[in-house]
Amino acid sequence: MDFASDNAVGASRPVLDALLAANAGPAPAYGADSWTKAAETRLSEVFETPVAAFLVATGTASNALALGAVCPPWGAVFCHEDAHVIDDECGAPEMATGGAKLVGVAGEGGKLTPDGLAQTLARFPHGLVKQVQAAAISLSQATECGTVYTPAEIAALAAIARAHRCRVHMDGARFANALVHLGCSPAGMTWKAGVDVLSFGLTKNGALACEAVIFFDPALAEAFPYQRKRAGHTLSKGRLLGAQLCAMLDGDHWLANARHANAMAHRLRKGLLAAGARAPWPSEVNEVFAILPRRADAALKAAGSRYYDWGARNLPQHERPGADEVYIRLVASYATTPEEVDRFSAIVRAA
Amino acid sequence: MDFASDNAVGASRPVLDALLAANAGPAPAYGADSWTKAAETRLSEVFETPVAAFLVATGTASNALALGAVCPPWGAVFCHEDAHVIDDECGAPEMATGGAKLVGVAGEGGKLTPDGLAQTLARFPHGLVKQVQAAAISLSQATECGTVYTPAEIAALAAIARAHRCRVHMDGARFANALVHLGCSPAGMTWKAGVDVLSFGLTKNGALACEAVIFFDPALAEAFPYQRKRAGHTLSKGRLLGAQLCAMLDGDHWLANARHANAMAHRLRKGLLAAGARAPWPSEVNEVFAILPRRADAALKAAGSRYYDWGARNLPQHERPGADEVYIRLVASYATTPEEVDRFSAIVRAA
Amino acid sequence: MDFASDNAVGASRPVLDALLAANAGPAPAYGADSWTKAAETRLSEVFETPVAAFLVATGTASNALALGAVCPPWGAVFCHEDAHVIDDECGAPEMATGGAKLVGVAGEGGKLTPDGLAQTLARFPHGLVKQVQAAAISLSQATECGTVYTPAEIAALAAIARAHRCRVHMDGARFANALVHLGCSPAGMTWKAGVDVLSFGLTKNGALACEAVIFFDPALAEAFPYQRKRAGHTLSKGRLLGAQLCAMLDGDHWLANARHANAMAHRLRKGLLAAGARAPWPSEVNEVFAILPRRADAALKAAGSRYYDWGARNLPQHERPGADEVYIRLVASYATTPEEVDRFSAIVRAA
Amino acid sequence: MDFASDNAVGASRPVLDALLAANAGPAPAYGADSWTKAAETRLSEVFETPVAAFLVATGTASNALALGAVCPPWGAVFCHEDAHVIDDECGAPEMATGGAKLVGVAGEGGKLTPDGLAQTLARFPHGLVKQVQAAAISLSQATECGTVYTPAEIAALAAIARAHRCRVHMDGARFANALVHLGCSPAGMTWKAGVDVLSFGLTKNGALACEAVIFFDPALAEAFPYQRKRAGHTLSKGRLLGAQLCAMLDGDHWLANARHANAMAHRLRKGLLAAGARAPWPSEVNEVFAILPRRADAALKAAGSRYYDWGARNLPQHERPGADEVYIRLVASYATTPEEVDRFSAIVRAA
Repeated sequence: MDFASDNAVGASRPVLDALLAANAGPAPAYGADSWTKAAETRLSEVFETPVAAFLVATGTASNALALGAVCPPWGAVFCHEDAHVIDDECGAPEMATGGAKLVGVAGEGGKLTPDGLAQTLARFPHGLVKQVQAAAISLSQATECGTVYTPAEIAALAAIARAHRCRVHMDGARFANALVHLGCSPAGMTWKAGVDVLSFGLTKNGALACEAVIFFDPALAEAFPYQRKRAGHTLSKGRLLGAQLCAMLDGDHWLANARHANAMAHRLRKGLLAAGARAPWPSEVNEVFAILPRRADAALKAAGSRYYDWGARNLPQHERPGADEVYIRLVASYATTPEEVDRFSAIVRAA
Repeated sequence: MDFASDNAVGASRPVLDALLAANAGPAPAYGADSWTKAAETRLSEVFETPVAAFLVATGTASNALALGAVCPPWGAVFCHEDAHVIDDECGAPEMATGGAKLVGVAGEGGKLTPDGLAQTLARFPHGLVKQVQAAAISLSQATECGTVYTPAEIAALAAIARAHRCRVHMDGARFANALVHLGCSPAGMTWKAGVDVLSFGLTKNGALACEAVIFFDPALAEAFPYQRKRAGHTLSKGRLLGAQLCAMLDGDHWLANARHANAMAHRLRKGLLAAGARAPWPSEVNEVFAILPRRADAALKAAGSRYYDWGARNLPQHERPGADEVYIRLVASYATTPEEVDRFSAIVRAA
Repeated sequence: MDFASDNAVGASRPVLDALLAANAGPAPAYGADSWTKAAETRLSEVFETPVAAFLVATGTASNALALGAVCPPWGAVFCHEDAHVIDDECGAPEMATGGAKLVGVAGEGGKLTPDGLAQTLARFPHGLVKQVQAAAISLSQATECGTVYTPAEIAALAAIARAHRCRVHMDGARFANALVHLGCSPAGMTWKAGVDVLSFGLTKNGALACEAVIFFDPALAEAFPYQRKRAGHTLSKGRLLGAQLCAMLDGDHWLANARHANAMAHRLRKGLLAAGARAPWPSEVNEVFAILPRRADAALKAAGSRYYDWGARNLPQHERPGADEVYIRLVASYATTPEEVDRFSAIVRAA
Repeated sequence: MDFASDNAVGASRPVLDALLAANAGPAPAYGADSWTKAAETRLSEVFETPVAAFLVATGTASNALALGAVCPPWGAVFCHEDAHVIDDECGAPEMATGGAKLVGVAGEGGKLTPDGLAQTLARFPHGLVKQVQAAAISLSQATECGTVYTPAEIAALAAIARAHRCRVHMDGARFANALVHLGCSPAGMTWKAGVDVLSFGLTKNGALACEAVIFFDPALAEAFPYQRKRAGHTLSKGRLLGAQLCAMLDGDHWLANARHANAMAHRLRKGLLAAGARAPWPSEVNEVFAILPRRADAALKAAGSRYYDWGARNLPQHERPGADEVYIRLVASYATTPEEVDRFSAIVRAA
């Protein structure tokens, strides 16, 4: 019953098999191998447009380098105030941009709203020299609350961004989970809605260490090979990344993994609600945010469960945990089993 | 006959097996897993002193972050003028240090000499505000010419460094190859000779993507967890790195791989000399630098060989290739076979 | 009637005279001149403790370099959400720190509160690798609302800072104005209350271009000569700065200038209130924030007045300007005359 | 007899008078004042083309920010190995570029040669990802040896630069001295010869603290207002800079000052040669590099002379000082008198 994170499990079997297969024999280094080239081609197919794609090993690298490609040192990136890029990456976007500013914007359920974004952007008029210049917005799809932007919501935010000369970045650490929830196409959730550059996450979804920075306007990527290299993110045995990406896309393995993880989270949320717990947000992807009695928390931990206490700061006032309650985050993965889920809910019910 | 680089081959079997074994089940993320912890313990044993070790996926990250830990933005790092850190990492050390200066020092065969180093350091007096401050030296072990510093040579350079308030970094991308050539201990080639921080390379030696930044004075590593994280180099599924490192150390696999690669290079060099080629430097590790007739080069390429032409800039005048010659670099790996080597030499002999 | 800013006027007569006097003859460059040395000595006297002081030409340089001396690239600086350092310096602190994060904290009247600061700091636990590390707080004395921290308030915030391993920076662009308002000593308002490093502003108070970065713990300043030089802020004809600073301190010219400017602001505020305007904050220094009818605004502008409209975002709800009102900032300087002030008020009264 | 540097003297009388005149009354801040605007207009006239000009207070800021405008963090700037930008600015160009690399190129008499530049650039092929990308060259006019590039020499180097996609920067700390030596026009020595951006120095030539970054292609300057601001180099009382620049250009004061300083250096060199000293380079500007007997050096110092010993590293072998000789640099300024010069020579002759 490990619900700590979707990065607590290893790679799925097809990913491992692909790694083993790709390992044999010599191959050109630094991403000139056939797996990496195939991965780039495949991504253009999946996204229905020619993309410039660059594989890296971590989500933080993917986000930071993507922002570094669209925001100058004197620029600002606007994101939700709880976004991973602003709160959980130890300043990586600041490093990759050469010192840009990340500006947090409030919004319920982890989501930027058009009004919130527009009001914040209005405080950064273009050309006002004493201020950093609005350069990009960053949307987390799914968000830190496990919620999902619809393509229409993305398009509305992207339109505001564009009116303020901002590029649109999407942090897609849980891209597949959001995609299968919405049932739309990768293109529909990205460039068709105004996204310029995507951090396409696979590690949480069954890869071992594989993310892609995907530019829908290849002109934005002109300097990216150098930006990635000087950040130390160009793997010498690049097939490690290429093989993972191919394996994830093959036979829509990435979508199947995401569907399973989402389903497990929904099952878990349903079980917890039935057991009397509260859950402030809908479980649109593979995460459940829940408020449990402390005694249930104790029973779960006694049974060896792993999960994180979560900061209640941004819960609406009426949803906040009471003195005898805890607020936790639970994450399901491609490997989560219905049995684990049901056992977890049963412990809550019993406690 | 792929002698392009020791990163042209995949991982060795024991590394793959370890990856597969480590993949099963959940594990704490971001390096809190048992493989990574074991790796850190094992490194302290191997180096006979308590070290602070941090695993990363690329050699460039390892070098750049190591230098970032010992050189401030207003500092200078002194290295051979052909060193990988100054010439082949697209400014990664500059990025990780926040803009420090790398100062190249001349020296035959890729090696810094005490005189050369001392003369260069003398131009950077401590406390002269208009100049960057000498902060570190970086030694490549083995060097870009495939030569190796003896522990006494390292100690002599380290003493000069220390007299100028400089820390000593070793770029050990081919650490094992140098070690088995010298037949000394890991401790003897590093901290006992004055090395403060080591980029311990395993990728070229049979891992898939695994390097360690090793601090012999753990106090230097105090901020390193943040420095690594903000560079995007903290893998979420950290066991990928931990398992590789353990597999490499287990049963001295790393030393066996290096011995084999070195032996193949020696065999190749001997074969080429016998075939009439010239070789300016001794092959102290797994590299051969050779001057061949153009017709041999053509025959080799026609036979599908892969290797790089090399810059002759730093060859002594009398060693330089003539108009009908090429200067090339050949690298053997843990997977190179005697048959490939002999076939290669035979083609040269025939041509 | 120029109330746009206290930087709209030139230097006061004693400053000019000092510049002329210091200009004659040769002098050592880069701050080794006798005026600069005298300035450093005088500052130790004024602050009743040996300080390390460094003169620069702009307030932004002073703030940014001061923060760069106490906050690493992976650190965070906590300041009021409207502070000059976070909002009006185009990312200079981010540049000087190598990419640190500035975290805005809410607080009425431009002032941090102990509760607000403590709650924000609590979200940045020391040693949590995924987050930037709390490194410094920055207090504006006076604040962006023209309010002033008492020494007791500074001490309370500094105690919280220290408990979170943070250094305390004071942005003293209007240091003298705050000081004469409080009637306390320079020492009492700084190091005795827990301030580690001060941006000591003189430009707004009658100098031409002169600020000092003052370290109360000289050990913090060890690398500052290099940090200032590589930022291009070490003037070659350093006497330009030294002479200004000496002239300002001579005969307490700086205090007289500040007293005059404050008195003019008080007179202006009183006049405006009497004329029916509203003023949300007390005028503790040389600034007046006022809400005027639009017709008064029009009459003032017709009469050639200069001042800035101000953002009402952080006014308490009940203080906000109505549809027929404007919210403006008025700044008095050492050169403001009672006549200008009274004429301005009279126009408002008439309108 | 202060020949330490042309920054050892204060401002010339017309500059002071202009400062005093510009000081009266209020003026818009941050360079929106009329003096700064006039300065920008005047520079377009002087250079016979519409320029984008930005005033700053130091030469280091001017050089570093100019390079920051034309070189990305993953770029390289090629300059003479003894250039001020590489050797005397404590890494300021590295800071302003976000970590670019400065690559030193050898060349006699402080001058880059077409061959030397081309050979070095050839080692940095465009698009080779492992290396920093050639982005700019920087020429010092006059050089660190007091020599001067002719317009034809500049054009030849600029052509090579352009063929390698490099922009051309000129460090004109002694621009006027070089200009009057050549007798050509400002346009002829800059954009007509291929210069893209100029650090136009006035401080050494009679200003107090005033340099201009001048872009001949204004499109390059698009982000410069932000780059200058975040570096803390936008003075609030900007008239300080504008007034100096206007005063220097008025009535060709800058050219008169430079002519005088050059003439004094020529007189000094002639006097020293007549007194038996050696002088390795022609004195094309206001500097004399001389080799004196140690006893002359002692006599000069006893008489209160000030000047710097200079590094003989780059003197041709046959020019190097012997054991009983010193190698020194002497700099004349707009304020140097023939009497000082002759007295200095007389002491050498006597010794």
